[in-house]
Amino acid sequence: MTTHIYCGDQRIDALDPGDRGLAYGDGVFETMLVHRGDAVWWSAHVARLALGCERLGIRLPDVGWLRIEVDAMAAGCARSVLKLIVTRGAGVRGYAATPDAPPTTVLALTGVPGPAPTDGLIVRWCDAALALQPRLAGVKHLNRLEQVLARAEWSDASVHEGLQCDTSGRVVGATSANLFVLRGGRWLTPAVVDCGIAGVCRAWMLSDVANSAEALLTRADVESADAMILCNSVRGILPVATLGERRWSPHPRTIALRQQLGEAEPAFAVADTLHDAAEDA
Amino acid sequence: MTTHIYCGDQRIDALDPGDRGLAYGDGVFETMLVHRGDAVWWSAHVARLALGCERLGIRLPDVGWLRIEVDAMAAGCARSVLKLIVTRGAGVRGYAATPDAPPTTVLALTGVPGPAPTDGLIVRWCDAALALQPRLAGVKHLNRLEQVLARAEWSDASVHEGLQCDTSGRVVGATSANLFVLRGGRWLTPAVVDCGIAGVCRAWMLSDVANSAEALLTRADVESADAMILCNSVRGILPVATLGERRWSPHPRTIALRQQLGEAEPAFAVADTLHDAAEDA
Repeated sequence: MTTHIYCGDQRIDALDPGDRGLAYGDGVFETMLVHRGDAVWWSAHVARLALGCERLGIRLPDVGWLRIEVDAMAAGCARSVLKLIVTRGAGVRGYAATPDAPPTTVLALTGVPGPAPTDGLIVRWCDAALALQPRLAGVKHLNRLEQVLARAEWSDASVHEGLQCDTSGRVVGATSANLFVLRGGRWLTPAVVDCGIAGVCRAWMLSDVANSAEALLTRADVESADAMILCNSVRGILPVATLGERRWSPHPRTIALRQQLGEAEPAFAVADTLHDAAEDA
Repeated sequence: MTTHIYCGDQRIDALDPGDRGLAYGDGVFETMLVHRGDAVWWSAHVARLALGCERLGIRLPDVGWLRIEVDAMAAGCARSVLKLIVTRGAGVRGYAATPDAPPTTVLALTGVPGPAPTDGLIVRWCDAALALQPRLAGVKHLNRLEQVLARAEWSDASVHEGLQCDTSGRVVGATSANLFVLRGGRWLTPAVVDCGIAGVCRAWMLSDVANSAEALLTRADVESADAMILCNSVRGILPVATLGERRWSPHPRTIALRQQLGEAEPAFAVADTLHDAAEDA
């Protein structure tokens, strides 16, 4: 793992233990695929980062500077995962932010997850529900205990992902991926209004895939779907084979979807995978 | 500021940038008053820390060891604030925890907040509401964006604290303190069932003060109360003088309450204060 830490645009040796990212989860993150030295979907990741910072009132690092640092780190990498964290920076004790404190940026380059199961993902329902908090919905912020609790519900390595509902019972997504189900010929994904993360691959689906849309989904809607996929920025689109008692055979529409993604983004044309313990939505 | 960082029971020089406390807010914290070299209400803080770790499935540091480290840091301090963070430790990328990873502990000693206003606190309502999440209610965990958003709603230094409701409209507390209102001769505080922090001073009130109890409270209940106080482990009990249009004169019951606390805990017999930017509930 290679890690760079910055205070504003200055490299620093270590994270300040008073950083508000640690104290309060006061920051946002992005996880992206690096393919042949390039950060895949960079523009979409930066746009979401900027929106998250704006929603939280965190100063956005200079995007031109950030691109240079990311490119330097990604240079020469055949295939890796790059995690980018931006926090409100170090502060004195207390919730009030220090005005004009420079943001903290952490860049960490790690290996890609192992290969995806060729037969599709084995997925389960989680008990840990997501609270309804419109102020934070969509933002990929650092307050992720609800996902941590969900992921702690299973240790069976044969289970690849867990699905979470919100506290009102509506389906939200997987702990580290967005979900789409095929119903009535349309690819449907939960709206990101009360909770959930607005994933970059999800955004690609909604903008570039015909007959894809947001919808309210119950557990029954998901379980009775014609097909189901999970998607995120690192693994692209992966078919789900099993959800509890439900089994799905590979669906022609899923195969076509993966093909369309591979044509749009060559990084996903190679065998892509979904790590069972990632947070890449 | 003096800061010590530990991986398990070993001092380390710097926080691992892959620490789950930063990545996910995957940890808990305590903020306590140090008075004449002693951590005030130590047993209560450790008990809450242990309960929080148990609720989140985080390994609790050895309590005997922790006491020794805290005592060493507090030794010779006339009056300070000690912040203690325990996280699930460093991990690989992804929500799944590394089994048997030692917890990270951070101890930070800082100065006490400035003197409390002699006339009582000036308090306002905040728009940022707290989501209903029973799985995390009561725990002083590191996912604190809701408090950060609330505290960002004002910059007027004459306003000392902000009150938050939950998303269903019930009153929860101040951003960094619990609240009690005097109604019908009783000191009432919101129950910590769906959100909020179970403060140590709040617990003292509920166990040691006659006619104190949990209750559902609306904004109207708070505004029409006979008296109102905020309490936390660093400032003890502070009267509220102003909430929006509402003004309260010092109430004999509030004066008696502060006297009772000072007799029970000598650290609070001296002039205590409530910093407008603390997180000490």
